[in-house]
Amino acid sequence: MNGSEARTDSKHPKVIGDFPGHFLPGVLFFIIALWWIIKNILKHVCEQQKRSSFLLTKEFFIRAEIMEGIVIVGMAIVGITGLYLMLGKRNQLPDKESQLVLVLHWHHLAIYFFFAMLGGTKILCFTIRSLPVSLVKLMLSNALFVDAFIFYNHTYDRALVDTFGHQLLSFAMFLAGLVAFLELFTKNNLILKLLRSSLTMLHGLWFLQVAFVLYPKNRDHAWDLSDHSNVMFLASCFCFYYALTYFIIGINYALITWLVKWRLSKLCTSETQLLKSPEQQEESENEM
Amino acid sequence: MNGSEARTDSKHPKVIGDFPGHFLPGVLFFIIALWWIIKNILKHVCEQQKRSSFLLTKEFFIRAEIMEGIVIVGMAIVGITGLYLMLGKRNQLPDKESQLVLVLHWHHLAIYFFFAMLGGTKILCFTIRSLPVSLVKLMLSNALFVDAFIFYNHTYDRALVDTFGHQLLSFAMFLAGLVAFLELFTKNNLILKLLRSSLTMLHGLWFLQVAFVLYPKNRDHAWDLSDHSNVMFLASCFCFYYALTYFIIGINYALITWLVKWRLSKLCTSETQLLKSPEQQEESENEM
Amino acid sequence: MNGSEARTDSKHPKVIGDFPGHFLPGVLFFIIALWWIIKNILKHVCEQQKRSSFLLTKEFFIRAEIMEGIVIVGMAIVGITGLYLMLGKRNQLPDKESQLVLVLHWHHLAIYFFFAMLGGTKILCFTIRSLPVSLVKLMLSNALFVDAFIFYNHTYDRALVDTFGHQLLSFAMFLAGLVAFLELFTKNNLILKLLRSSLTMLHGLWFLQVAFVLYPKNRDHAWDLSDHSNVMFLASCFCFYYALTYFIIGINYALITWLVKWRLSKLCTSETQLLKSPEQQEESENEM
Amino acid sequence: MNGSEARTDSKHPKVIGDFPGHFLPGVLFFIIALWWIIKNILKHVCEQQKRSSFLLTKEFFIRAEIMEGIVIVGMAIVGITGLYLMLGKRNQLPDKESQLVLVLHWHHLAIYFFFAMLGGTKILCFTIRSLPVSLVKLMLSNALFVDAFIFYNHTYDRALVDTFGHQLLSFAMFLAGLVAFLELFTKNNLILKLLRSSLTMLHGLWFLQVAFVLYPKNRDHAWDLSDHSNVMFLASCFCFYYALTYFIIGINYALITWLVKWRLSKLCTSETQLLKSPEQQEESENEM
Repeated sequence: MNGSEARTDSKHPKVIGDFPGHFLPGVLFFIIALWWIIKNILKHVCEQQKRSSFLLTKEFFIRAEIMEGIVIVGMAIVGITGLYLMLGKRNQLPDKESQLVLVLHWHHLAIYFFFAMLGGTKILCFTIRSLPVSLVKLMLSNALFVDAFIFYNHTYDRALVDTFGHQLLSFAMFLAGLVAFLELFTKNNLILKLLRSSLTMLHGLWFLQVAFVLYPKNRDHAWDLSDHSNVMFLASCFCFYYALTYFIIGINYALITWLVKWRLSKLCTSETQLLKSPEQQEESENEM
Repeated sequence: MNGSEARTDSKHPKVIGDFPGHFLPGVLFFIIALWWIIKNILKHVCEQQKRSSFLLTKEFFIRAEIMEGIVIVGMAIVGITGLYLMLGKRNQLPDKESQLVLVLHWHHLAIYFFFAMLGGTKILCFTIRSLPVSLVKLMLSNALFVDAFIFYNHTYDRALVDTFGHQLLSFAMFLAGLVAFLELFTKNNLILKLLRSSLTMLHGLWFLQVAFVLYPKNRDHAWDLSDHSNVMFLASCFCFYYALTYFIIGINYALITWLVKWRLSKLCTSETQLLKSPEQQEESENEM
Repeated sequence: MNGSEARTDSKHPKVIGDFPGHFLPGVLFFIIALWWIIKNILKHVCEQQKRSSFLLTKEFFIRAEIMEGIVIVGMAIVGITGLYLMLGKRNQLPDKESQLVLVLHWHHLAIYFFFAMLGGTKILCFTIRSLPVSLVKLMLSNALFVDAFIFYNHTYDRALVDTFGHQLLSFAMFLAGLVAFLELFTKNNLILKLLRSSLTMLHGLWFLQVAFVLYPKNRDHAWDLSDHSNVMFLASCFCFYYALTYFIIGINYALITWLVKWRLSKLCTSETQLLKSPEQQEESENEM
Repeated sequence: MNGSEARTDSKHPKVIGDFPGHFLPGVLFFIIALWWIIKNILKHVCEQQKRSSFLLTKEFFIRAEIMEGIVIVGMAIVGITGLYLMLGKRNQLPDKESQLVLVLHWHHLAIYFFFAMLGGTKILCFTIRSLPVSLVKLMLSNALFVDAFIFYNHTYDRALVDTFGHQLLSFAMFLAGLVAFLELFTKNNLILKLLRSSLTMLHGLWFLQVAFVLYPKNRDHAWDLSDHSNVMFLASCFCFYYALTYFIIGINYALITWLVKWRLSKLCTSETQLLKSPEQQEESENEM
């Protein structure tokens, strides 16, 4: 009771939600984006080396997509179950607040539902061969846009910094959705895939940042949620997180290239690698 | 008189329009979107099976387009006639309100007029062969954008929830118009056609939702039109309706594929179907 | 003095500018859009008939472009000269107002200047052969966007209806600029050219409408510039003007097709026209 | 103390920042845009003349890109060092203001950081051949968008004219980022490259204009930062600066074409130049 009162003064207004509710989705989005980065770089490097080892065949990548679909559906089901378990808690809240928490639960349900649909479409499209594969891209774009739409309508009557944090969550997701929509019109464009992954990772990292800003461990060092200079500081933080995603992409690129080359040189040292570089150059240019 | 007064209190402000005025267009948009979904999936499945039965020839689809044009023109004429018949009612209203109703009638007339133009262009382009077919796509995009523009300028001085409901109507139509505009630059892109159909169906379903929210059957369970948590709840509803359109598309896809295959297997059981699946896979990939 | 006072009451606030200042640009934009429509349809029909008569050769169209450039430069110079002549009048105005009129003159000068640049680029690109032709498209897009940008920043401290009228001017120009920018990435896309022309014509027609709304001939039937239902009514007017541009395009298309066919049949009746229609159909489909 | 007080009256409110802080980036952006213009026109003219002299080979342009990368990284490091040196000064400021200056320093750091990343990517992609070249385009687009995002969040609690000036800085950068993003999907599109350069140059020129508006040399002729007619005047200024960039492009185009031709005619007068012009025409048309 004491802590709750301390938070509802002018500097630290009432904040809905809790730390794990923002930390966990952040981690999930980070992991999924990291997996997209690894998958796409691996696919790109394999194509560039123009040979598939015993492991990294086309079937491997199709199986990876199906597995990704199952994992996404699983995550969504866990999330939805979690929502229903947490629904019990709200009986302890006052009436008005209880209603708002219920509405926010519907918001989260909508997001989980669209990711479940994405997972389901992924499983269907990569198992039933007559379905167009681009349907997966459309459902991905839909899931990201719906996420952005929900977060855009999520921030009524919140503190300045709280609102701004959620608007940037929506902004990162909207951009990711836009890039995913552009992918509908391209075929195997590595740059767009990495851009979409980096924006999704930014969304995940920003969830973590928001969790630490809104629900600080140490109440004494809490952020002043109504100070506009905090908003301006968060704007530059957002950019630095975005820069960070490119460093993560760069490290992955270097590691995967080295791994594939090292593996290949062990498995098939007999094959000549002369005159390889001009071709590679050409490929990397044709890519776009 | 009693009921009308009860509605103009702070929780239930005066709502312009009536239930059938929002229910009927909703049903019409739903039907037209459903027809687009069936037509495009049928066309896609026929192309994928690489043979046309006696019924589903190219001429059949051209005739279907002309018929669609005639139906759209018919609907628009019925709508415009209905507007003029309802214009008589407004004499019973007070002066200020009568003027507003007249202005709203002009809004509806503009929408009907552009759909009539779409229908007319469809009939002309599919009968006169020298006209470019892409003109139909332009007029479709125009009709959807004008619809969105009108709804955007439709919501002055309304209750919070009323305004939000109409903004989402405008939003769905704007997105559908954007996709229709993108179709100008593509050729036979199934995914874009389904996306446009699903957004149009969402527009239709949302009309139905708005009708039930604004003009409830049971006055005692009426929505509080000035409560912001209703706005947030409607935002998640909007997403679930969007998800619903994809389930409708999925069911249609499964049914039509099954019907075409079953029909084909009855009509031409002699032809071999060996080695079909790799080709189909390739096609579905080339599609985008 | 009497009339000016009558206009500055609450219903008829002070309106800057005069009737000819909005009527003349409206007529100019209408004429230029009409010329674009005629030029592009003529080019399209000639290509579709797959032969050029003595008159409508490729050289004819290049000369037409150069002539168009000269006319646009001429119009811009006349406009700039007119601005300087009208600058003298403002000495009679009070100090504050005089400054505002000067600022608005700079606005008009910017618009005329960019159209002069468009004209100049047109002349240069079609006379000097080494210059890329797409530079003309870029300058056209620039001129339209600058026009939209200026009108967007044009409407400070005006009456409701006055502001809305100028926002729609800006809106039509912005859309025309967007289409002109898209033309950069396409080659001879008739639909985009007609769309850009129709939006420019809409801009012209809307100038005429704004002139009649803001500076009515008969002061007794003046519009109430602060009534929001007038804004809503103007929104539907805007759509009907847009519909009108398509009727003008349709009439031009029909007339020009008939003229070219009639002329061709007179000039070269000997050549066979058998089996023409399937080809034409194909062409009109390939067009997009 | 005296001057500072004079500035914080209603007409001349407190302005954060100083003259060199806006003048220097303006000069840097102008120089980099000028270099882009010269580089791209030189490349275009060399390709058009279909031969490379001893100097302007493909290797020359690759080396030029690497050198550009090094220069950009160098500029960014100088900028970041400058920021840390200036950080000492803020101890003299009152507490609240000191905090704001620190936040603004983080903003500038984010911008410099992304340009450093652009430079680094340029060096890596043009030295390591297996990296996709389009990564450079993505990082350029990122740097420009981040710049626009930072400036958009930069203008809290400033005077009217100050805010508008910074919004236009953000606007020019946003457009440049958009064009750079579009370049991802094209290959050697001269027009888009020149458009991106002209918008970056506009950004630079506008920095200079903002420097002179906000920090006038002569305090007596200072701009009234709260007068809206100054905002409207600056809107037209912005357009004229944009026009100026095209004149700079035009002069460069003429000079470089003349130089290349003159140099070529000196180096290789023996080769025939007959029948050149029709080819060139074709090329310039194919370009888009």
